[in-house]
Amino acid sequence: MRAQAVVAFGGGHGLHASLSALRTLVDDLTVDELTAIVTVADNGGSSGRLRGEFGVLPPGDLRMALAALCGDDEWGDTWARVLQHRFEGNGEMRGHVVGNLLIVGLWELLGDPVLALDWVGRLLGAKGRVLPMALTPMDIRAEVRGLAGADGGDPETLTTVHGQIEVATAEGVITALDLEPPDPPVSPEALRRIAEADWAFMGPGSWFSSVIPHVRVPALREAIVSTDARLVVVLNLDEQAGETGGFGPADHLAVLCEHAPGLRIHTVLADARDHGPDQLAELRQVVDAAGARLVVDDVARDDGTPRHDPVKLAAAYARIIERADGAEVVERADGAVEGR
Amino acid sequence: MRAQAVVAFGGGHGLHASLSALRTLVDDLTVDELTAIVTVADNGGSSGRLRGEFGVLPPGDLRMALAALCGDDEWGDTWARVLQHRFEGNGEMRGHVVGNLLIVGLWELLGDPVLALDWVGRLLGAKGRVLPMALTPMDIRAEVRGLAGADGGDPETLTTVHGQIEVATAEGVITALDLEPPDPPVSPEALRRIAEADWAFMGPGSWFSSVIPHVRVPALREAIVSTDARLVVVLNLDEQAGETGGFGPADHLAVLCEHAPGLRIHTVLADARDHGPDQLAELRQVVDAAGARLVVDDVARDDGTPRHDPVKLAAAYARIIERADGAEVVERADGAVEGR
Repeated sequence: MRAQAVVAFGGGHGLHASLSALRTLVDDLTVDELTAIVTVADNGGSSGRLRGEFGVLPPGDLRMALAALCGDDEWGDTWARVLQHRFEGNGEMRGHVVGNLLIVGLWELLGDPVLALDWVGRLLGAKGRVLPMALTPMDIRAEVRGLAGADGGDPETLTTVHGQIEVATAEGVITALDLEPPDPPVSPEALRRIAEADWAFMGPGSWFSSVIPHVRVPALREAIVSTDARLVVVLNLDEQAGETGGFGPADHLAVLCEHAPGLRIHTVLADARDHGPDQLAELRQVVDAAGARLVVDDVARDDGTPRHDPVKLAAAYARIIERADGAEVVERADGAVEGR
Repeated sequence: MRAQAVVAFGGGHGLHASLSALRTLVDDLTVDELTAIVTVADNGGSSGRLRGEFGVLPPGDLRMALAALCGDDEWGDTWARVLQHRFEGNGEMRGHVVGNLLIVGLWELLGDPVLALDWVGRLLGAKGRVLPMALTPMDIRAEVRGLAGADGGDPETLTTVHGQIEVATAEGVITALDLEPPDPPVSPEALRRIAEADWAFMGPGSWFSSVIPHVRVPALREAIVSTDARLVVVLNLDEQAGETGGFGPADHLAVLCEHAPGLRIHTVLADARDHGPDQLAELRQVVDAAGARLVVDDVARDDGTPRHDPVKLAAAYARIIERADGAEVVERADGAVEGR
């Protein structure tokens, strides 16, 4: 098999885990061109402060993606740790992250957000390229049903909530998600990478604030819908309070499909644990409706946290790529494979 | 002549000019080991804020020295410009410099100030090493005569002023300068580089806040007094309001000698312009008293500002090194050399 071109969509810790996995597939020559396309809708923390102060893209998710792709020698490892370093204490720098400040400095100096990220990639010896989802800062706008405190607490009332932090912390059920501006400019390089990819990985990550935003950018959605790349949706391991409270794996997949008309999914990857027979059956229904195959594999950390283990994830991704044309598979925790 | 080991003492823009000159001597193999030993007494601006917030060395002068030594390819040039980039606007980051934040992040992460500076040097492809004057943040304490407003304005009253910014902006004549703490720890590497140097360059720069502090650090002064390196004092081109108002070249040299008992000066470099016959005669007296030789050369920028031109400075330094055992020389602006 020739080496594959891969794009990965997401943001935050979920994308970091996925890129950490994909980086090892670059090392073993399974993947030869790796591109991360990263959400730029954050409005909180260090990113939110810098975005508010300078009107730039929020750098945090981009920085984290770059750090995940760092070279695995002392050079790459040290600079990744420096870029990820967050200032503590009680002063004005508290909460700011070194890499965010470096990226904003590069943006101011070079003027071109993509070129600046490439410079950080070169600094890190990054094993892939990191591109922003859009070339302007984005804001998330969500319809939330039964928002706590809204309209006397009527559980059916819909409220519009603006801002990623506000959406992620709103108590209620998110029923729809859109972006402002609704049709932002997108890097031609991102569109080219999607068009030329063999595989596209979407998720894991904060479902409404890091995964779904990509399919709400019209130019990006069009590229994703029309590429020949096989799309792999990597489901989260658990519901996430504030974003997907009460969601099972089927709900995660269903809400993604609802937000991306025309999306063709090749493979859905779910973890082998924590899903009862009912949940799996329900997921299988949605997967079938989407015309996809279901792969259930062991991808969770052993520490019990609802986070993906990059080493296990890399093995699962490698199996997915190797068995591109295979049938749906369920891998049991003991490593045996059941055909369906 | 074998390549020379050189140390340069100073801070700020003066040291930046001197290092920019010495860097070209590394390129032409006149110099093979270049070390900057940089003042750490700044308490204003971005450095002062970071020092106050984190209790670290003020990074600004160290950053500027590193930038001066950057590799002369696109890589070194770009990272030097990024590190020197100062945030504007009206927000909390206003005035902070990207390189200062990167250095403080490295200090927090690595714990060792010298190791961290070496990492920045590697990033820049620096053509020399940058070491701090001391391993703890320093404060300047000056005796100022006739401080405006003090004691009813009596011009003979002595007032103690604390802090570099406060000293540099005090209206009055600085008569003595000391440091707090008075005997700080010094990097063994700095002492070794001084002991093994062939040449040591002191100045140009803010005379009381960037040049004289080095000889007020006991361990450093002892190393400077006892090294076999030939010491070159590079005089400023003009008086500096607040620090050396009313000072001619002879006064600059005299006040340095007063603050460094036992200092053996090999060469004093003064600019060929702006010094009348009286000033030169006065300077020659102080140079003779110090047992040094006087070199008067064309080292000023052509734009009329009282700043050194790194290209001219490099040529002057090269001549000083080549004619180490020669007599005092005065180079006229037309390039002719007069023996005395």
